[in-house]
Amino acid sequence: MEHNQRIIFTNDISAAIDEALANIDYNRLFVLTDTNTAYFVLPRLADNTHIARAHNITIKSGDMNKTIEATAEVWRELCANGATRKSVLINLGGGMVTDLGGFAASTFKRGIRFINVPTTLLSAVDAAVGGKTGVNFRGLKNEIGVFNEADAVIISTCFFSTLPLAEVKSGFAEMLKHGLLKGAETYDRLLAYDFECRDYDLLLSLLRESVQVKADIVRQDPHERGIRRALNLGHTAGHAFESLAMSHKNPIPHGHAVAWGMVVELTLANMLCSFPSSRVQEYAKFILENYGAFHITCKDYDALLTLMSHDKKSENGEMNFTLLSDVGEVKINCCASDDDVRAALDIYRDLMHI
Amino acid sequence: MEHNQRIIFTNDISAAIDEALANIDYNRLFVLTDTNTAYFVLPRLADNTHIARAHNITIKSGDMNKTIEATAEVWRELCANGATRKSVLINLGGGMVTDLGGFAASTFKRGIRFINVPTTLLSAVDAAVGGKTGVNFRGLKNEIGVFNEADAVIISTCFFSTLPLAEVKSGFAEMLKHGLLKGAETYDRLLAYDFECRDYDLLLSLLRESVQVKADIVRQDPHERGIRRALNLGHTAGHAFESLAMSHKNPIPHGHAVAWGMVVELTLANMLCSFPSSRVQEYAKFILENYGAFHITCKDYDALLTLMSHDKKSENGEMNFTLLSDVGEVKINCCASDDDVRAALDIYRDLMHI
Repeated sequence: MEHNQRIIFTNDISAAIDEALANIDYNRLFVLTDTNTAYFVLPRLADNTHIARAHNITIKSGDMNKTIEATAEVWRELCANGATRKSVLINLGGGMVTDLGGFAASTFKRGIRFINVPTTLLSAVDAAVGGKTGVNFRGLKNEIGVFNEADAVIISTCFFSTLPLAEVKSGFAEMLKHGLLKGAETYDRLLAYDFECRDYDLLLSLLRESVQVKADIVRQDPHERGIRRALNLGHTAGHAFESLAMSHKNPIPHGHAVAWGMVVELTLANMLCSFPSSRVQEYAKFILENYGAFHITCKDYDALLTLMSHDKKSENGEMNFTLLSDVGEVKINCCASDDDVRAALDIYRDLMHI
Repeated sequence: MEHNQRIIFTNDISAAIDEALANIDYNRLFVLTDTNTAYFVLPRLADNTHIARAHNITIKSGDMNKTIEATAEVWRELCANGATRKSVLINLGGGMVTDLGGFAASTFKRGIRFINVPTTLLSAVDAAVGGKTGVNFRGLKNEIGVFNEADAVIISTCFFSTLPLAEVKSGFAEMLKHGLLKGAETYDRLLAYDFECRDYDLLLSLLRESVQVKADIVRQDPHERGIRRALNLGHTAGHAFESLAMSHKNPIPHGHAVAWGMVVELTLANMLCSFPSSRVQEYAKFILENYGAFHITCKDYDALLTLMSHDKKSENGEMNFTLLSDVGEVKINCCASDDDVRAALDIYRDLMHI
C-alpha cells in the first residue's frame, strides 16, 4: 500500500466523485455495478459528467456470484472497451462489488486505480476500507484476492434510506465492534442510536468515527500480522453462528452474526480478561432489543466448537480470540479452552433469554 | 513491496533452498513445476529435506498455458492440500512458471510467500526479479497480474548446461541490455563473453552483475512510472519483430527479438541522442555473429510501425522509446516519428547485411 487512501464522507455523491477524480489523469472511466445497483443506484448519478461518459460493467448480484469467473467477465469488459493502465474503475455497490471490483482492478495490467462507492452500511463500515479485495473460490470465502487500497472511498448514508432496516442493523454491528475497540466515548454514542428515528445525518457522523477506527488499525498493520486481528472481535463466534445457520439452510446476515458473536466473546472477555459484567449485560440488552436472539441449544455446542476451531484466524488448531479487558482495551491472540467456550455459550443463552 | 527480496547466487541449489527457508516459519511447502522441470530439474533436488517433504504441483509447459485457468489449477491444488497463509510456494522453472506461480501465490489467501528458482537464463536475468507476476488473457501477454516480489530468488547457472545454446543466447540479450543501461565497464565484459567456451562460472558472475542492475532500477521505481521504463530498451522494436514473426507462424525467441530490437533502437539513439556510431557498429557486429539477423524488407515497415505504435508502453499513440546518449546514459520517454523509425530500419538492414 504505497498511497494514502482518501476517504470522503459526504451526502453529495456527485461532488465527491468529481473530487475523487480531480487529481487523477485518467483516460477511460468504468463503473462496476451489480444487477441491483445498476437499477437502483446508477441512474441517480447519471447527471455527473464523469459518470455520463463512463462505460458501465454489470455483474450478477449476490455472494454466490463473487467468483473468479465474474472477475474474468470484468477483465474481458475492460479489455474489450480499451482500458489501459491509466483507466479507473469505480465500484458502486455493496461488499460483493467492492471486493470483486477491487480485485479485478488490482490485477488488470498489474493494477489500475479504483474508487469504492459502498452503497450499504456494511460495505461502508467494513469492506470498503482496509485494502482487502477478493473473491470466493470453491466454497471458501475470499480465498483468492490481494491487499490493495482503493484510490478513494466515498462514504455516504444517502443510499441507505432504500435499504431494509435489517441491512442497516447488520452494518451497525460492525460499528459497535469498532466502538468497543476504540473506547467508551465512541461506544456509548453508538448505544444511544435509535433505529426508529433513522437519523441519517447522525449516522454519517457515527460512521465517520467508526471508519476512522478501522482505518487507524489497518494503517498500523496492513497485512494482518498483529493488531489488525483486533478487527476479528466477535467474528470467531460470529462466523460459527453464520455457518451453523447456513448448514440449517437458514442464513443470517453477517452483521447480525457478529452482533451475537460479540455477546459470546464479551462473555469470554469477562471470564478471561476481567471485562466488566455490567458492560456485558448492557451490550446483550441492546442486541436483544434491536437484533433479537440467535437460537441455539446445548446440542449445538459441539458443532459450534468445531466451527470455531476451524476458523481461519486460529493458528495451530487452538481457539484464538480477540478479547477486551474493558471497552477500548484490546487483547489479541487470547486462547480459550473448549470448556471456556461452552461456559460462555451457556451465559449467552441466559443473556438472550433462550 | 514491503520486504527486501533476497537474491542468492549459487551453484549449490540445495544449500540455497535451506538458506532461503531458514528464516521462514512455514507449515507446508509446495513446489510448482511445469511438465519439463518436473522431469528434468525436480529429481536433481530430491535429496533436499525441504523438497522431499513438499507437495509438487505441475502445470503444462509453454506460454500458451500461462492462463488464469492454469492459475486456478494451482489454487485448487493449494486448497486441496491444506495450504494456509503460512505456506510457501517454490516456483521451479522458466519465466512462465515464475510469472504464473508468483501470481498464484500473491493472490492465494491474499498472498502467501513464494521463492523463485529460475531454470533458464532468460528467467534468471529477467522474469525472476522485479516483482512482475501474471498470466496471459485473451491473447494479451501478462494482461492479468500483480506487482509482488518473491521472498527470495535463487539464481544459478547449474541448470543451463542442459539448455539449448539458443536459449542461453536469448537470456544473454537481456544481460546485454542491462550492460548498456549500466555502463561501459559492465557492457564490455559482456561483449567479451565467448559462447563457444560456455564458462558457467564466468556466466554466473556476469549474471550477478546483470541482475543487480535490474534490481537497482526496480527498487527506484517498482510500479514502472518512470525510470523502470529504462528496462524497455530494445523492447519496442523487439516486440514488433516478435509479433511480425508470430504473424508469419515463424516465432523467434524473446531474447533474440530484443537483441535485434536493440540494433534498431541504438540506431535511433544515434540519430536522436548522439549515441556513438562506433558503439552501434560494435553491437551490431556482436549480434550478427552470435544471433544472426532477423530478415525484414521494406515491405514490412508499415506492419512494424503499426506494431510499435500499439506497444502497450507507448502513451497517447506516440511512439515512445527508451534510448541512450552513450553506454550507461539513459533517456526514457523519447519520441520518434515514423520517418525516424523507417530510417533506423534501413540502417538496421545495412548493419545486418540484409
